[in-house]
Amino acid sequence: MTKQQLFEQITQKNSYLCVGLDTDIKKIPSHLLKEKDPIFEFNRQIIDATAEFAVAYKPNIAFYEALGAKGWGSLQRTIEYIPKECFTIADAKRGDIGNTSGLYARTFFDKSSSGLDFDSVTVAPYMGSDSVMPFLEFEGKWVILLALTSNTGGDDFQNLQVHNAQSSVHSPQSSGHYSEKSLYEQVILTSQKWADSERMMYVVGATKADKLLKIRELAPEHFLLVPGVGAQGGSLEEVSKYGMNQQCGLLVNSSRAIIYASSNEDFAQIAATEAKKVQQEMEKYLQIYS
Amino acid sequence: MTKQQLFEQITQKNSYLCVGLDTDIKKIPSHLLKEKDPIFEFNRQIIDATAEFAVAYKPNIAFYEALGAKGWGSLQRTIEYIPKECFTIADAKRGDIGNTSGLYARTFFDKSSSGLDFDSVTVAPYMGSDSVMPFLEFEGKWVILLALTSNTGGDDFQNLQVHNAQSSVHSPQSSGHYSEKSLYEQVILTSQKWADSERMMYVVGATKADKLLKIRELAPEHFLLVPGVGAQGGSLEEVSKYGMNQQCGLLVNSSRAIIYASSNEDFAQIAATEAKKVQQEMEKYLQIYS
Repeated sequence: MTKQQLFEQITQKNSYLCVGLDTDIKKIPSHLLKEKDPIFEFNRQIIDATAEFAVAYKPNIAFYEALGAKGWGSLQRTIEYIPKECFTIADAKRGDIGNTSGLYARTFFDKSSSGLDFDSVTVAPYMGSDSVMPFLEFEGKWVILLALTSNTGGDDFQNLQVHNAQSSVHSPQSSGHYSEKSLYEQVILTSQKWADSERMMYVVGATKADKLLKIRELAPEHFLLVPGVGAQGGSLEEVSKYGMNQQCGLLVNSSRAIIYASSNEDFAQIAATEAKKVQQEMEKYLQIYS
Repeated sequence: MTKQQLFEQITQKNSYLCVGLDTDIKKIPSHLLKEKDPIFEFNRQIIDATAEFAVAYKPNIAFYEALGAKGWGSLQRTIEYIPKECFTIADAKRGDIGNTSGLYARTFFDKSSSGLDFDSVTVAPYMGSDSVMPFLEFEGKWVILLALTSNTGGDDFQNLQVHNAQSSVHSPQSSGHYSEKSLYEQVILTSQKWADSERMMYVVGATKADKLLKIRELAPEHFLLVPGVGAQGGSLEEVSKYGMNQQCGLLVNSSRAIIYASSNEDFAQIAATEAKKVQQEMEKYLQIYS
């Protein structure tokens, strides 16, 4: 899917909602457990109920992988079922040396190899360029690179101040005057040499104005995938106000608050109600901030 | 497996060789393709031929995952087949927010969930403490944290000089005198708050004396998993000389140079010959440097 196609879908649905399919066999309504593939059946009903309000779906790969081969079967059926106009994200946080990342790319992008055909995959930046480039070799597919995450451990490394060794204590600019950046900012800057906003997005767990403004300065054109709004307490309005660009530039994910809004037989219907609420809020922000 | 048990096996086999099971359906001898599960059949014969010389096996998860559900089946059969005295490493480079990392931990450690029961998993540090801790909740299981990788992209971020924002340009210590570290050194330092050398190892792609010495200063007691010796040109002697500690403290991986040493029907026999060569060199270094 191209950036333009994604934007058109956003415009058409008046939504930039991504529904996170963190589907846990322990959390789905018990009446589904009699189905042959309860995980897929849950996803199928959630997708049917929410596709009108969502532009993207994001299966969290860990939930499927934890069930071994069977889980990969459910994942495959799910990704085949998602309507083609919706953007699909394999939330996998992969990243390895070049030839291994090439195999991870095959996993998520090459249907003939793995049975999966996602539009995008989330990638961890720690191993650098050659851990990311193989995903970009698949035409029309996207990398969503981890930049700033909102978990408690995100602070451990992502907010460290960094600079190149070349401009370190031995250079004349070193006495506190060289340009300092956070690691996550450096990740955004460096990775822009690898792909532009037509092929790369960033995971940005920020809901604070100052960080969103800074990120928009560094990456004005890129789509940002924002997790953690809703259940985890981030404000959708703040994210929209400070994160939106002229082509929306946001995919805001909600998982639990939608898919587990009810644990009864009406789960899909309630999920639709919750997704619609978010969509209506988004429609308002698209008018104000875009 | 405990650190002591691993060390005992090293002493018994006079080896710290880890055989990387980067098993590629496109590279295995063609006569195996008639088998029901060619990937597992290849691994089975490699394991039979090399278990005498190797203390650890490291399936590279990407190779299995790229084949979808079928690949997970081959992986499951492989891990079940590896002799119990050998240390097993899921080279998966996972890492996500707490509850998701918990599911990745289940994937590799909880046989009742996924069918897999590895001793350890490689984890990416970018998302910090809560992305790593869930793996440590499984008693007796290990985290092998990415510190310094030897791929070309490793330089992009791992060697950046870092310091905490608190000691930045606004503090009196900021005029070039605060203690500077590379990101990978900071990863080693910070992560020692999460687990000690009984539960954590580091991936260290270094073969240069200066870096190995520095890492040993930061983590004298930890095992280091060193990939890329052999085919990728690192020197086993350098690694052993500068990386070994009193309990060996090294697992040195070799994948292609052993498993693909021959592409004919004699592949397992030739793999044994190559593994034995490495083991004999290791035996020598254990005497000299340990």
